[in-house]
Amino acid sequence: MLDSAPDSSAGLIEPLDLAPLRKGLLDGLRFTVKDNIDLAGYRTSYGSPAWRDAHPAPVHNALCVDQLLGAGARCVGKVVADEFTYSLDGESFYFGTPRNAKAPDRVPGGSSSGSAASVGNGLADFSLCTDAGGSVRVPASLCGLWGMRPSLHRISEAGVLPFQPSVSTVGVLADRFEVLDAAMRVLLSAAATSTPVPRRIFVLQDALEIADAAVQDQVSSALDRIADNTGVVLEWVRFSEIVGAQYALNACNLEGLRDLQTAEFQSTVGNWIEVCKPELGFTFSQAYGNVRTFDRIAALDNIARCERFFTQINAFFAPDTVVCFPTTPKIAPVRGSLNTLEAVMDFYDPTMTITAFSGVARLPEISAPLLTVDGCPVGLSFVAGHYRDEFLLNAVRELVC
Amino acid sequence: MLDSAPDSSAGLIEPLDLAPLRKGLLDGLRFTVKDNIDLAGYRTSYGSPAWRDAHPAPVHNALCVDQLLGAGARCVGKVVADEFTYSLDGESFYFGTPRNAKAPDRVPGGSSSGSAASVGNGLADFSLCTDAGGSVRVPASLCGLWGMRPSLHRISEAGVLPFQPSVSTVGVLADRFEVLDAAMRVLLSAAATSTPVPRRIFVLQDALEIADAAVQDQVSSALDRIADNTGVVLEWVRFSEIVGAQYALNACNLEGLRDLQTAEFQSTVGNWIEVCKPELGFTFSQAYGNVRTFDRIAALDNIARCERFFTQINAFFAPDTVVCFPTTPKIAPVRGSLNTLEAVMDFYDPTMTITAFSGVARLPEISAPLLTVDGCPVGLSFVAGHYRDEFLLNAVRELVC
Repeated sequence: MLDSAPDSSAGLIEPLDLAPLRKGLLDGLRFTVKDNIDLAGYRTSYGSPAWRDAHPAPVHNALCVDQLLGAGARCVGKVVADEFTYSLDGESFYFGTPRNAKAPDRVPGGSSSGSAASVGNGLADFSLCTDAGGSVRVPASLCGLWGMRPSLHRISEAGVLPFQPSVSTVGVLADRFEVLDAAMRVLLSAAATSTPVPRRIFVLQDALEIADAAVQDQVSSALDRIADNTGVVLEWVRFSEIVGAQYALNACNLEGLRDLQTAEFQSTVGNWIEVCKPELGFTFSQAYGNVRTFDRIAALDNIARCERFFTQINAFFAPDTVVCFPTTPKIAPVRGSLNTLEAVMDFYDPTMTITAFSGVARLPEISAPLLTVDGCPVGLSFVAGHYRDEFLLNAVRELVC
Repeated sequence: MLDSAPDSSAGLIEPLDLAPLRKGLLDGLRFTVKDNIDLAGYRTSYGSPAWRDAHPAPVHNALCVDQLLGAGARCVGKVVADEFTYSLDGESFYFGTPRNAKAPDRVPGGSSSGSAASVGNGLADFSLCTDAGGSVRVPASLCGLWGMRPSLHRISEAGVLPFQPSVSTVGVLADRFEVLDAAMRVLLSAAATSTPVPRRIFVLQDALEIADAAVQDQVSSALDRIADNTGVVLEWVRFSEIVGAQYALNACNLEGLRDLQTAEFQSTVGNWIEVCKPELGFTFSQAYGNVRTFDRIAALDNIARCERFFTQINAFFAPDTVVCFPTTPKIAPVRGSLNTLEAVMDFYDPTMTITAFSGVARLPEISAPLLTVDGCPVGLSFVAGHYRDEFLLNAVRELVC
């Protein structure tokens, strides 16, 4: 951690006070901005001091920032991102580990760690952040916040640093559903038209089964409450029933998305690292070793398989279908505990098995802070078909709010 | 034009011979790569010597390049792009004007000018290029080639320079439909599943009406042939019937896409130009003046309208619907004739009125080289719903091949 790093408790890198540019749906709301999204006049670090020092400050805000300022919100700070946003744990070598407000001895999750901390610790009502492999959803789950990853490319990425172009999205973390809903509607340019009633709610059985037993119990209780309150009959589905008997849920990640993400990361940040040889943090440099030696030609078949999974998963979704599952299979790891390969794998493997479902299928997903295990939060995720973001927001409001 | 510029007739910047990495669907085919798409070990110029000199050569090919090499194709060259790909005419201040093989006294169209010239002049069977406002479709139309812009973000943009993230796509120009079809299927990771028969063919009446009279006549004849050959009854539709009576077709551009494109371009290339103050070519610097002074906050309502148009236009498309119209309203302008504001507007305004339809609605579009006016080519475009790229390829094969 840098000597000059500010207090990392709220994940703040730079306090700001950017006033709203117009009145609108977000009047009175304060937001922070993850440090891979441009703010005019401030260098964007991408979670890396080396990147920050090598790239001049942008002249324009990212378009998504201007959408929020143009709808009445006030920007109160730039917040920590994991190094190159290539992590799900939220422990930054350079900027410290932002505080998980509801489980202070545990990691906040990443890569939108500062976003989660700034909202969880009361600095902001919501945070503008990004998700590819789970960087909105995992901190939402581990910090007990609302989080939404929209359909791939529904929200403009102009002014957001390129990461994994076929997977990355702009998203939001918020303390209340109403705030998440309002911020997402602005970013989505959502129409006020009605959407179907959520009539078919499927539990993704494979995702539930890889969760810890206590998480499974909590999910069951939450689903029972939803069924009781709404009268919707829950159904169960296995991944193999969606895409074919030869695939288990972990195929989304292991036989598809992981390779697409690695190949795309080689082309964005990887090219820069190979040419500029910047200083890298210890944890990231370990992970990057696998990126450097990755054989993208051998990966082409898995990359093509992502498109099959996309088509098959989306064919399963009718306009009134919601799929749900625990956002993460576990509560947050204790801070500093991810210090062996075994501990890292134990966190990442089952987590990415779940998060890859929406990733590979380009789906909108909302993590709702509905579960508690050992006093720590876990999210319950709701997913709808590609580009059915407005339906998903309305469905979650109807089912759990 | 630079003293050191190579012969621009085929649009070649750098002759290459990158052998296929595996056998596949593209065995025996040669392709070129537009100079905003990374080739490992070669600096990517973005059509700008200043950009080229400021950015080191990438270590990895763009993922789309590797997809083609991994499917049996051979890369034979890097070819000219208009400066920052921000043009539709194909006259490059720095790299010369590539030759329009079928109308040598006329411009090739841009920004994929070198791609069109390399295919039209026999250097390659197809070219890997990009399209936002029409950069594949316009050169296809003006040079008499096949061209396809896919659905937004169906093809990975990893290793393609960021331009207008909500509009830009990777596409292909080819000399024969079979080649276009094969190259696009590889890039799309297209499944071999069947698609609907194209039962409803709508002519977009507003687009036809802004075309030159001779182009209109050619379109009518081509459509009559299609109807005679296939037995499909053609229908007519006005833009106002799709999105509401208050909008004419030019609203796609003037009240929506143009502002989204300008705001996004500010965030990508614009930031770099403002900070680095590079040398700019005369024509681009004129156009960039409007980008520099553009008020992105005042544009937010138009940017939100793009999402409405997207939804409304796509609601019109059933799985078996194709919409068609002339790709461009005119044949190519004579080389050197775009030297007054009036001449520039006369080319760009009606062209972008048409190209913005697919742009704002994120649609796949194929330009087919079916029309000839005064001995010069014009394309006939076919469009399908968002993510129905495989259907569109099959439909065009059935209708016109």
